Amino acid sequence: MGDAPSVRDLGEFGVIDRLTAIVGLPRDERLVVGVGDDAAVWRSGDAYVIATTDTMVAGVHFLPEQVAWSDVGWKALAANASDIAAMGGTPSFALVTLCLPPETPLEALKDLYRGLRECAKACNVTIAGGDVVSSPVFTITIALTGEAARALDDSPLLLRRDDARPGDAVAVTGPLGSSGGGLRALLDGRDESAVMHALIRRHMRPVPRIDAGRAAVTANVRCGMDISDGLVQDLGHICAASSVGAEISFESVPVDPSLVAAYPEDARMMAATAGEDYELLLVAPGDVLARASAALQAPLTIVGRIVEGDPRVRLLDASGKDVAVEHAGWDHLKRT
Amino acid sequence: MGDAPSVRDLGEFGVIDRLTAIVGLPRDERLVVGVGDDAAVWRSGDAYVIATTDTMVAGVHFLPEQVAWSDVGWKALAANASDIAAMGGTPSFALVTLCLPPETPLEALKDLYRGLRECAKACNVTIAGGDVVSSPVFTITIALTGEAARALDDSPLLLRRDDARPGDAVAVTGPLGSSGGGLRALLDGRDESAVMHALIRRHMRPVPRIDAGRAAVTANVRCGMDISDGLVQDLGHICAASSVGAEISFESVPVDPSLVAAYPEDARMMAATAGEDYELLLVAPGDVLARASAALQAPLTIVGRIVEGDPRVRLLDASGKDVAVEHAGWDHLKRT
Repeated sequence: MGDAPSVRDLGEFGVIDRLTAIVGLPRDERLVVGVGDDAAVWRSGDAYVIATTDTMVAGVHFLPEQVAWSDVGWKALAANASDIAAMGGTPSFALVTLCLPPETPLEALKDLYRGLRECAKACNVTIAGGDVVSSPVFTITIALTGEAARALDDSPLLLRRDDARPGDAVAVTGPLGSSGGGLRALLDGRDESAVMHALIRRHMRPVPRIDAGRAAVTANVRCGMDISDGLVQDLGHICAASSVGAEISFESVPVDPSLVAAYPEDARMMAATAGEDYELLLVAPGDVLARASAALQAPLTIVGRIVEGDPRVRLLDASGKDVAVEHAGWDHLKRT
Repeated sequence: MGDAPSVRDLGEFGVIDRLTAIVGLPRDERLVVGVGDDAAVWRSGDAYVIATTDTMVAGVHFLPEQVAWSDVGWKALAANASDIAAMGGTPSFALVTLCLPPETPLEALKDLYRGLRECAKACNVTIAGGDVVSSPVFTITIALTGEAARALDDSPLLLRRDDARPGDAVAVTGPLGSSGGGLRALLDGRDESAVMHALIRRHMRPVPRIDAGRAAVTANVRCGMDISDGLVQDLGHICAASSVGAEISFESVPVDPSLVAAYPEDARMMAATAGEDYELLLVAPGDVLARASAALQAPLTIVGRIVEGDPRVRLLDASGKDVAVEHAGWDHLKRT
């Protein structure tokens, strides 16, 4: 490609910025939330539609020889449902696009759809259509719509990225790092023990926090997202969208005991930086988070706070010193 | 792969049938139209959402070395907008997924988005979000939503595939085969003349018939679709969904003069069988079609009629004899 700049030079977020600039500002006044949040939101009649899309490419997002096709089906839908949960909404209808190498065994496809059906049932999603095309590389793309919760005055109740304020507390809905541990176990070929199996299952069968998102908006939480790229990186997205800084107390990041057992040296750093746990990250005044926590089946864990200043995330130890972040999170375009 | 059946053995429609069987019947009572039509339709509050998705894979749906990236962007959105038009609806919001090889030049991406923006403007669509991932193969997948027209009692006005009845006339909104002619010119490397350029433009810059679809449902047409796989094959889909047969008068199929000039021997057969013209195919009693035609900018052309019997499409010459169909249309999985 010579010296001309390529996608690799910019990375995922750089590419999105450039393309968004070309598209320009949206002109449709029905649009409530556009590019830059977990999902888009627009008004449709008297309802608010939430819509998102997410893709898994064989060899990039999963290795077909290492995972069950049914798990790929589950995860493809779960990642989308988590984006709807990340807005505080309820998922409803999915469109499924399959790009299939012609030699794909029919049995693999059936397994894929069995996993997809299981996740659809768990999330109360109806598969309403899609597209099937030929491709040299297996790819599954799901577009999922849902509906926003509404206030008594019919305005939409949403978890946005751009509503964090200095003084807000930062909480997560559950232990982190397990999915990253499962990925590491897969890559290391370590699936020998029950502990490793549990981590791999967390990696391949994440459970979207739909109820938690809904409970959070009902309890007046207005800022949040799901943790798909890692706590540090995702909180950074909230900081950038809200023009604030954040501090995370490293010691307070909750870690799954299985992850500690499997990778004792790295467990907490993995919890702070590894992606795809699909827990929710919630930002609100402490008393609002306390009320939200009381409404949830599992209590929230406070991990940090929002501060004034540059939109960056500091990871601090018990004495208030900065902890060096080893790996800030994924960038799907740069990591290949 | 041994003897185990693969995707190639079943083809696109066989794969869809098998997967639909696994998913089972939809349980959400808000769903109005599910798998099997041009787009899905569901109720959302007091509105009816129409949703569709369509994919273009480099090397399968277009050859990057032969076409402009801006044309790929236009066509990717136009194909989706045509699915909304095929339901009689109005497109509104799009989610764009790009699967990008890391070496993709940034300039190609910008051109792609310029074409996408032009089509979005022409169709009054707002790009509301999407996903960007790394992949060995360039793929663009768009999910597009729209809204259905509504009757005075608020019920949705839709062009469905399953509402053709014996005695209905079959009409198309414009000349056919031009896109197929453009594809043939590209594959033959024949872009030397103004005629060939016009055909290639019809292939790469199809104009979705949004106004025609809306005018048709307003005029009480209740059955129709867009012609993406070819007239004979697409009318076959309507026959299958409606459990009726159809007869096309070969001589009455409208053909673009450019196509006749470029491929005089094959022009009419291409008009009957080639895909991607994105004109609409409308089925209704003759007097209903006459009223719809009067409401359109360009008059409809009656090309055949619906008959009782097996769900098959006969192509008849002026003396009523069957004309052999040379190529019934695309199957994206079987043709590779």
